[in-house]
Amino acid sequence: MLTNKTHIELEHLGKYKLIAHLSEYFQLKNNSSRLGIGDDAAVIAPAKPNVVMASKLIQEHIHFDLAYFPLKHLGYKAITIAVSDIAAMNARPTQIGVLLAVSNRFSLEAVEELMTGMQFCCTRYDIDLVGLDITSSHTGLSIAVNALGEVSPEQLTTRNGAQERDLICASGDFGAAYTGLLILEREKKVFEVNPKQQPDLTGLDYVLERQLKPEPRVDVVHDLVKCGIRPNAMINVSEGLAAAVLQICQASNLGCELYETKIPVDAVTFETLKSLNIVATTVALNGGEDYELLFTVPQADFDKVRQMENVAVIGYTQESAAGCNLITNDHRSIALRAQGFEQNEL
Amino acid sequence: MLTNKTHIELEHLGKYKLIAHLSEYFQLKNNSSRLGIGDDAAVIAPAKPNVVMASKLIQEHIHFDLAYFPLKHLGYKAITIAVSDIAAMNARPTQIGVLLAVSNRFSLEAVEELMTGMQFCCTRYDIDLVGLDITSSHTGLSIAVNALGEVSPEQLTTRNGAQERDLICASGDFGAAYTGLLILEREKKVFEVNPKQQPDLTGLDYVLERQLKPEPRVDVVHDLVKCGIRPNAMINVSEGLAAAVLQICQASNLGCELYETKIPVDAVTFETLKSLNIVATTVALNGGEDYELLFTVPQADFDKVRQMENVAVIGYTQESAAGCNLITNDHRSIALRAQGFEQNEL
Repeated sequence: MLTNKTHIELEHLGKYKLIAHLSEYFQLKNNSSRLGIGDDAAVIAPAKPNVVMASKLIQEHIHFDLAYFPLKHLGYKAITIAVSDIAAMNARPTQIGVLLAVSNRFSLEAVEELMTGMQFCCTRYDIDLVGLDITSSHTGLSIAVNALGEVSPEQLTTRNGAQERDLICASGDFGAAYTGLLILEREKKVFEVNPKQQPDLTGLDYVLERQLKPEPRVDVVHDLVKCGIRPNAMINVSEGLAAAVLQICQASNLGCELYETKIPVDAVTFETLKSLNIVATTVALNGGEDYELLFTVPQADFDKVRQMENVAVIGYTQESAAGCNLITNDHRSIALRAQGFEQNEL
Repeated sequence: MLTNKTHIELEHLGKYKLIAHLSEYFQLKNNSSRLGIGDDAAVIAPAKPNVVMASKLIQEHIHFDLAYFPLKHLGYKAITIAVSDIAAMNARPTQIGVLLAVSNRFSLEAVEELMTGMQFCCTRYDIDLVGLDITSSHTGLSIAVNALGEVSPEQLTTRNGAQERDLICASGDFGAAYTGLLILEREKKVFEVNPKQQPDLTGLDYVLERQLKPEPRVDVVHDLVKCGIRPNAMINVSEGLAAAVLQICQASNLGCELYETKIPVDAVTFETLKSLNIVATTVALNGGEDYELLFTVPQADFDKVRQMENVAVIGYTQESAAGCNLITNDHRSIALRAQGFEQNEL
């Protein structure tokens, strides 16, 4: 996309020029995007009655490590993170606004790499970049993404609508992104000890891609419509499957039975974790950054759900008094737990 | 507002509990706010055809210094900064989403102070907090505010609609916020040398308040309607009056004559700057953080503009070839310049 690959320090460019330059590569495509970058605010004329809004802030040293995170992937992932929350409302993402805080050690080339990744994600999912602001940072890169989407009131799906004895369904698989992170952190340590040693990442493409370039499950939102399913409740699985299940149950005042044997874990994830002596279920339940969708449907929708690609039924809801339980592979029932519900690392 | 003033370290609170606790103090009041904090995304049912969106990110050490910035004021100001951009579209602000990155040296009390300031601003301007996320930071406080507003297409005002020989009008006065900052920085240095010396801030309330607790000029948007004025162009004056005038002229492909003698500067600002041996006009043109509105109207609206409180006509637009000029108090014409147009500190 951005052809100017000369190494230019950001401080030598005017802020307005930089924003104007970067915004050239983003054209507005959605009819609802009436005014994009360049005024005090963006203007949107929503085609549907409900607008949904979700914002995410990610920070260097906390959420990502530029030692192994390519900027292009980071840009893509930043969009995914915010857009996943739009998809989780059963809404179609339409616009995003981006705020960057960059240190002046960043070159124009680096910012362009980041924006190229954002452009890829926006193009892939028909999302318009309608806002961009860049400020300086003494302390590393910060990226805030604000995403808007549109949905009809009939399609809108919140966390709190699950009914007793709904099927609990999940898209994709779990634990891969966290496994990818473990590998990247391991290779970083190896590199620190011996910078000449090449990283051994053979066969690990899947878990690395899930960490470095996750996709927002906008396709699931489309598939739900195609299969005639309007879930009773839906949530973005960003902080582990267990937290997502507990959040739906808590919001809907229900309990659940979740089956360990039904939790989808990719073979590469499983084998990689095994080689690290880590139980895959633990990572699938608590790893985070999966950006899959978890939703509940009435049992009557079972045949419809079976038509959906890569969607698994992993349990069912039950009355609140029965609790939230994990039925383990050896048929024990244990209380489902997640970080953030009791105490949390923030 | 928040009654729990016990010193609690954030790491001892769960993230979900913290967000739930803080959100209790924000009730949804706008009919268009259908779902606030607590789901993956907020849901808005806009009452007007156009939604405007503006986002701002402010960071400790870059945009504010907690050595002298009370957290309550900082919360208020963070909202003002984003909402000013909504007002500049001639729109009514309706919702905000807030993202915080806080270091774990922050107590619950500190976060509550910050949110109290946000609550004050939201209450004053009938804005609903519909999104809140909190993440950790190794490097100081970051605050991202995303603001939404509503406007009819007839009222919507952009930067690029100014016509030749429009009157250039400005709300309020200029240079006060920057003057306040100079004073606060001076007193900080005095304190560093002699911590026992009390700061001398007598008579400086106005410039300090303009720095620490600026107001978004939502009232001007209401007054414009009341006086039957629909400006041809409007912009938020956040980076100095000169930059704002140049941005309207550039977007509208016009030049202008700006009269130094007409630029509104408060008496306290003027006297304070004089005591610091700084020319008031320089600060009024380039100081920044005024958050006033600059707009242009046809000459036929002159009598209507005169009805508006605290709005001054400071110049007029002209053909592009005539350039953008400042007519000084001694009747010289000099080219108007601003940071960010040639090169910028980001």
